[in-house]
Amino acid sequence: MMRDPLTKAQTLMEALPWIKHAWGRTVVIKYGGAAMTDPALRDAVAADIVLMKLVGVNPVVVHGGGPEITSFMDRLGMPVVFHDGLRVTTDEAMDVVKMVLVGKVNKELVSAINSHGRYAVGMSGEDGNTVMATARDERLGRVGEVTAIDTTVLDNLIDDGFIPVVATVAAGDDGGSFNVNADLVAGRLAAALGADKCIFLTDVDGLYADFSDKSSLISAMSADEAEEMIALDRLEGGMVPKVAACVHALRGGVRRAHILNGTVPHALLLEVYTDEGIGTMITHDGAESRPASAPLPGPGDVLPTVDANEDGVV
Amino acid sequence: MMRDPLTKAQTLMEALPWIKHAWGRTVVIKYGGAAMTDPALRDAVAADIVLMKLVGVNPVVVHGGGPEITSFMDRLGMPVVFHDGLRVTTDEAMDVVKMVLVGKVNKELVSAINSHGRYAVGMSGEDGNTVMATARDERLGRVGEVTAIDTTVLDNLIDDGFIPVVATVAAGDDGGSFNVNADLVAGRLAAALGADKCIFLTDVDGLYADFSDKSSLISAMSADEAEEMIALDRLEGGMVPKVAACVHALRGGVRRAHILNGTVPHALLLEVYTDEGIGTMITHDGAESRPASAPLPGPGDVLPTVDANEDGVV
Amino acid sequence: MMRDPLTKAQTLMEALPWIKHAWGRTVVIKYGGAAMTDPALRDAVAADIVLMKLVGVNPVVVHGGGPEITSFMDRLGMPVVFHDGLRVTTDEAMDVVKMVLVGKVNKELVSAINSHGRYAVGMSGEDGNTVMATARDERLGRVGEVTAIDTTVLDNLIDDGFIPVVATVAAGDDGGSFNVNADLVAGRLAAALGADKCIFLTDVDGLYADFSDKSSLISAMSADEAEEMIALDRLEGGMVPKVAACVHALRGGVRRAHILNGTVPHALLLEVYTDEGIGTMITHDGAESRPASAPLPGPGDVLPTVDANEDGVV
Amino acid sequence: MMRDPLTKAQTLMEALPWIKHAWGRTVVIKYGGAAMTDPALRDAVAADIVLMKLVGVNPVVVHGGGPEITSFMDRLGMPVVFHDGLRVTTDEAMDVVKMVLVGKVNKELVSAINSHGRYAVGMSGEDGNTVMATARDERLGRVGEVTAIDTTVLDNLIDDGFIPVVATVAAGDDGGSFNVNADLVAGRLAAALGADKCIFLTDVDGLYADFSDKSSLISAMSADEAEEMIALDRLEGGMVPKVAACVHALRGGVRRAHILNGTVPHALLLEVYTDEGIGTMITHDGAESRPASAPLPGPGDVLPTVDANEDGVV
Amino acid sequence: MMRDPLTKAQTLMEALPWIKHAWGRTVVIKYGGAAMTDPALRDAVAADIVLMKLVGVNPVVVHGGGPEITSFMDRLGMPVVFHDGLRVTTDEAMDVVKMVLVGKVNKELVSAINSHGRYAVGMSGEDGNTVMATARDERLGRVGEVTAIDTTVLDNLIDDGFIPVVATVAAGDDGGSFNVNADLVAGRLAAALGADKCIFLTDVDGLYADFSDKSSLISAMSADEAEEMIALDRLEGGMVPKVAACVHALRGGVRRAHILNGTVPHALLLEVYTDEGIGTMITHDGAESRPASAPLPGPGDVLPTVDANEDGVV
Amino acid sequence: MMRDPLTKAQTLMEALPWIKHAWGRTVVIKYGGAAMTDPALRDAVAADIVLMKLVGVNPVVVHGGGPEITSFMDRLGMPVVFHDGLRVTTDEAMDVVKMVLVGKVNKELVSAINSHGRYAVGMSGEDGNTVMATARDERLGRVGEVTAIDTTVLDNLIDDGFIPVVATVAAGDDGGSFNVNADLVAGRLAAALGADKCIFLTDVDGLYADFSDKSSLISAMSADEAEEMIALDRLEGGMVPKVAACVHALRGGVRRAHILNGTVPHALLLEVYTDEGIGTMITHDGAESRPASAPLPGPGDVLPTVDANEDGVV
Repeated sequence: MMRDPLTKAQTLMEALPWIKHAWGRTVVIKYGGAAMTDPALRDAVAADIVLMKLVGVNPVVVHGGGPEITSFMDRLGMPVVFHDGLRVTTDEAMDVVKMVLVGKVNKELVSAINSHGRYAVGMSGEDGNTVMATARDERLGRVGEVTAIDTTVLDNLIDDGFIPVVATVAAGDDGGSFNVNADLVAGRLAAALGADKCIFLTDVDGLYADFSDKSSLISAMSADEAEEMIALDRLEGGMVPKVAACVHALRGGVRRAHILNGTVPHALLLEVYTDEGIGTMITHDGAESRPASAPLPGPGDVLPTVDANEDGVV
Repeated sequence: MMRDPLTKAQTLMEALPWIKHAWGRTVVIKYGGAAMTDPALRDAVAADIVLMKLVGVNPVVVHGGGPEITSFMDRLGMPVVFHDGLRVTTDEAMDVVKMVLVGKVNKELVSAINSHGRYAVGMSGEDGNTVMATARDERLGRVGEVTAIDTTVLDNLIDDGFIPVVATVAAGDDGGSFNVNADLVAGRLAAALGADKCIFLTDVDGLYADFSDKSSLISAMSADEAEEMIALDRLEGGMVPKVAACVHALRGGVRRAHILNGTVPHALLLEVYTDEGIGTMITHDGAESRPASAPLPGPGDVLPTVDANEDGVV
Repeated sequence: MMRDPLTKAQTLMEALPWIKHAWGRTVVIKYGGAAMTDPALRDAVAADIVLMKLVGVNPVVVHGGGPEITSFMDRLGMPVVFHDGLRVTTDEAMDVVKMVLVGKVNKELVSAINSHGRYAVGMSGEDGNTVMATARDERLGRVGEVTAIDTTVLDNLIDDGFIPVVATVAAGDDGGSFNVNADLVAGRLAAALGADKCIFLTDVDGLYADFSDKSSLISAMSADEAEEMIALDRLEGGMVPKVAACVHALRGGVRRAHILNGTVPHALLLEVYTDEGIGTMITHDGAESRPASAPLPGPGDVLPTVDANEDGVV
Repeated sequence: MMRDPLTKAQTLMEALPWIKHAWGRTVVIKYGGAAMTDPALRDAVAADIVLMKLVGVNPVVVHGGGPEITSFMDRLGMPVVFHDGLRVTTDEAMDVVKMVLVGKVNKELVSAINSHGRYAVGMSGEDGNTVMATARDERLGRVGEVTAIDTTVLDNLIDDGFIPVVATVAAGDDGGSFNVNADLVAGRLAAALGADKCIFLTDVDGLYADFSDKSSLISAMSADEAEEMIALDRLEGGMVPKVAACVHALRGGVRRAHILNGTVPHALLLEVYTDEGIGTMITHDGAESRPASAPLPGPGDVLPTVDANEDGVV
Repeated sequence: MMRDPLTKAQTLMEALPWIKHAWGRTVVIKYGGAAMTDPALRDAVAADIVLMKLVGVNPVVVHGGGPEITSFMDRLGMPVVFHDGLRVTTDEAMDVVKMVLVGKVNKELVSAINSHGRYAVGMSGEDGNTVMATARDERLGRVGEVTAIDTTVLDNLIDDGFIPVVATVAAGDDGGSFNVNADLVAGRLAAALGADKCIFLTDVDGLYADFSDKSSLISAMSADEAEEMIALDRLEGGMVPKVAACVHALRGGVRRAHILNGTVPHALLLEVYTDEGIGTMITHDGAESRPASAPLPGPGDVLPTVDANEDGVV
Repeated sequence: MMRDPLTKAQTLMEALPWIKHAWGRTVVIKYGGAAMTDPALRDAVAADIVLMKLVGVNPVVVHGGGPEITSFMDRLGMPVVFHDGLRVTTDEAMDVVKMVLVGKVNKELVSAINSHGRYAVGMSGEDGNTVMATARDERLGRVGEVTAIDTTVLDNLIDDGFIPVVATVAAGDDGGSFNVNADLVAGRLAAALGADKCIFLTDVDGLYADFSDKSSLISAMSADEAEEMIALDRLEGGMVPKVAACVHALRGGVRRAHILNGTVPHALLLEVYTDEGIGTMITHDGAESRPASAPLPGPGDVLPTVDANEDGVV
């Protein structure tokens, strides 16, 4: 479809209030799903993140990499065992986890972002003791539970103008490394960083009131409702840690959490910079505050200002 | 026309390389023509300027206000006399010039911009002795010729995060005020500020090879060619100071000068953030370096980086 | 009268404790009356303000311009109507108010100050949304009541070493401009800036216990007494907003308010830097703490120090 | 052996002039050999690096990891082929190189250092485009030749108080990654960072005049002599890139390069903070300026001062 | 005794945890006793202080100089009279006190320190009104009691990288100078500076449970116990002000106070940077927390970090 | 004599251009003569210096103290021997020199200044190795010749807002102290600090064309003329080092040197802040640029501005 100049101008203008709103704020993006494995989607996500950086947002990217770990363990002939959905992680497996997350997945995203310039710095949760963990259950080996977050390295990288990309390996209180759930780390980091938003990229369109009914997509819900869904076991398995992380982030002061379909090209931009938004949004009160139509702000609109962008219209 | 999400995402993506290019740079905008008198156009220009600010550009706005001065002098029953296209400016007329430019035109634009937040600070060229002038010709009274530019106040306002809006009144070496040509001041300021671009908003589409032939619009030309057009008297009268200012800015280190039709809504955005650009562009060598198609930068493209955005693709 | 060197040295020494006291502090000066219209008085005030700046004070100048507005409206054949002492301000009149205050009165003072160097930056209360207002009474049109003060632009200008000169036009919550009382704005700004003093330049020697008896000049009084005078209607009409502004400033933390006769040359210097002081001073407790004689501080005097100049002797 | 207090005091005092000399300077440490694979040696190196950091040096650690890459490729059943001593690196092998260097070797050292506190931040040469490379020879696949060094990320990490640990993977000009020689990267980084010293940890005691004669260890030599040894093919194969890197560093302004035996516990400390030093030192002129005995500096010694520690005694 | 490299490395490693602990902290050193008069001891103390500075501590040195004052007064034929252990200080004697402390003792130590580089800046308590005092007892003349401490000059010198050396002369509230007890000033300054430690150099090994029994040296005690010893008169006379100063410092937030034998060469280093420590340590709770053996910290030890070195192991 | 307000205002106004001129500049004041020994004159000088500081100048005070040294040596029964006008300074005498200069004269002036607040910090040339010297002639003992100036401590104190007061003792290249000529040190420091002025306080009115003829006072002269007067031996003995220091300062970039009569109360203020000036001024070209009358600057005067106060009117 040909786009005429006016249409373009309207799209840019539509972005204005959202740019104003998000300016100077930190957004944590949990990168995962198909966007992590499909090079074209990865490049689109990378471009979205660079655009967000350039228009004033401070993106922090967090990722795990389960499928790639499994595939690599298979290649090495190592047994892949799960216990209650958690990967039993021997010391040897932990080495593989680190290699895949830090040495492969992380670098692929850093490389995609840096094709646009010197923006991204990859790191592991072990760097600067950013993520500390302890053993969760001895039967699980090096599976860790996060005990502390130290945002010093992240704060420095953000202040220095970089986009941090964090592989979710944790430094252990026993000197070793731990394999930690990337969704939960994203939620913890969002809270510790005082982020405005925490966005989870998945391969589905969002949460469903009834997950067998694809017409029941939930557009917005409250943290309480989200907790109830977990308690009532009404979520697909893979969604539980994501929704728990959303709730954790919100309880820790983050303003909004989003679950988006990362297979939609530029899903991040559409969520952040257009009127419609997409996916499921979880807020403190569940109110769906997206204006049906976001007109160009006229004289007299009281809008958030550059350095005092308290919660306004959005 | 309905815009589907993908189209929107494409428009935003199209803006990415231009945002990257312009990030951190100063752009001087000479505001004038219909955009100055039509409230709807003025609001659109104000929104464009705020958007530019939010996506990393430092806009500096410069304006005169000839028609409003004439109309106000008429209301006061003061004679309006021009000599070689320059307004004969008695001391009493000078008072009116200042009142209209600083007290009316300037404040209307400041007000339109600040309807979006605390962004704009209006000022006169007299503030902080930003523009100094001397008498041009005693028969013209308080018509001044710029003798010096001091960017201290502007530099401070930019560093402090504001959008300066400058009314082109100059402080005189005799302690009085001078009426100075706004186009020329814009060119001088662009050079003194080390601006990347200097954009002139007019009511026509640009320069014409033959100004009686509307099909002869010039898309791009060199500074030498522009000077030749002045020398050969091939420009419409009103264009002469604009083109002279463009040449002055380019000779002073500005990378590009543009003459745009400000009656096109969001002309600024279209010029700065889309592939097509509009109007007439004057560069050092006249090369029309706009890429026919500006694809999403892929891995391996060498692109300007955040803090070293030397002249790249654009 | 010839002044011998010793006399000069004594005058400079007399200024020492006052310079020490005022060093690093902000002083808001409400400029008005004859000093605004008489060029020689204006130049004297400008010199006083520059001297204050150079000896460590941060002056902020606030002004209105009623008489000039009236005279200009007369010239334009516009009706001048007052209602309860407030100018009925149509939209058209508001344009004139802005032009006269921002484009004429403001620039005349900026120009007088800047004849000494690059010190002053003129601005309107609309710049950076410094003064926000709402309609006071629909019958009065664009007469506004101040709703909020934002000192960001002022703080930046002060930090950058400039003397801000503020014309009292306010940004309206409806996107328009408002005509606001300059005395009240001065009091509000003094409180918001945490100023040490707020000085009102008038054409009379101060307040009188009985305003028909010129021998009843009040040298010092408390904020409570001042409020009582307003309540008991014991002030000349023009003094009411000034005294109300003094009280507002004091209640907001300003240490002293002064009403001076601006027709006395260098009244500002005499008040700030000599032992006698002049005019009426309003303080929290009304104590007339000016020492009868301010001797050169000798060893052992406990005096305010450079960075901790708490309220001392003065 | 029991150490009495006086002996301890003497050892600390012996360190004083060397601490003074090295204070505030950057030292690049090429980590490798047995120190990389033996956990006890790795912990000793980590402690040495932390001590250096605490006593005023800015260490930057650079490492490769050839043997671990080979062993991992073996486990994956991938063919290991060398061509002229360079590993033929297919795309698939490049993935393994990154995983081993960035995800394993790097993290093991970061973890050992951070057992002492939040000091180290691991990174790849791809982060922030720190090391850029191009293909060296198409037959070698992803083996790269360094084309550019950008120290922005390193400078920021050093300024922020961290110890950067750099895995020598390079960002390619084609958007891919390159496998680059760690010795050469260490030399390049030392020059680009304006380092004072560049130290190579190996498994031998240094360079030998005749490498078949272990009594011919060279204590000090000049850059010219080092170049000659390369030219005359008088070095063991593994030493060639190290010596070439030493020469490159010296030619780029580094003051000294050292080749140490990393199997000696605390070899770094002994080289940097004791009188004897160890290993082979290469300097601009080959002078062995280590004083035979470094007495406590007495009054009158002209010693380097805190902020001007130009090359003095050492 | 010959020291082999390994022994040296062990000594340096032994210092690591203590260096880590003390890094970035302020230590007040009361210089006195034989170390003040014996040039060799003075040079050793100076070297210790420079080493402490270089390894991250901010030393502040405080000194008196009683014996030298007495000897100088004797040379001048001035009567030396003590009253309750306090020197009766006439105005003339006060001049001598200042000359000896500020002009001789202070400069000798500054000179010894600066033989290592531009580190020390000598000052008197009068400079910048750092120490203010009032008369203690009119019969004692210019003997003062400290009334206020202003650490501005000290803070500035520390921030600027210098080692302040303070002679304990106080500025009087009467414009004159006062002779103040150096031990007490050291304790006051340590508290005001938020120092980590306050160390008193004396000529004895520490405090004795029974000062006639040299085998009863107290290694560690609490502030309460120290106060009790003063109250029960169980201290040698000269120790009373030192112990009182220790208690004052501890009550004011200092973590530890030490009384060391300054005739032991490098006593400061041994106390601060070795496992054994020496002398008597007074802490809040008297716990002797020096670990019997301070092993090299291994992976997993939770140790204080660079910028958050809260009280850990030590 | 009674001073009426207008006279006072005129005096303050007269100071305005001089304040503007000197603002932000460094002035070195060589303190000596009667002002050093007479407490009332000392207090007047102290007040002058504080006033200068408050009105924007950075004063640096330098002093010796010959007569007091002699008197103290007499009291100690030490022989006072001069050789070619230079005090033969044994090691013992050097101790006395330091005690008198640093411990007495310096502290008296610091105390007089600090009676006005926390302004002065006394120091010796040995502090921070500010003044380095070597022996001048072995027969003179510890008489030194300045070899180097390091303004680091002075720069820091000035930046921190203090008034440095420097006793002219130098750190020796042999670890000892040296007695150096205060006039010459003042000239050297003025040059090294890039001072605007260097002022010598003496007990005479200035230089005389014929020093036996008190009517031949020289108001202004050039550096060349001053050098010639030294060469031709046309100066009183005590004036030679002062004039030599003036010439050194001027050759080193100082704009003006002054020789004033410090027995005139507030001589400093009269020289710096009034139209007449006093004493002898030495400039590069000898031009007596003091305007006969310094009128209030009117609109249009081109005056030095706050941050660019290049040499203007004065």
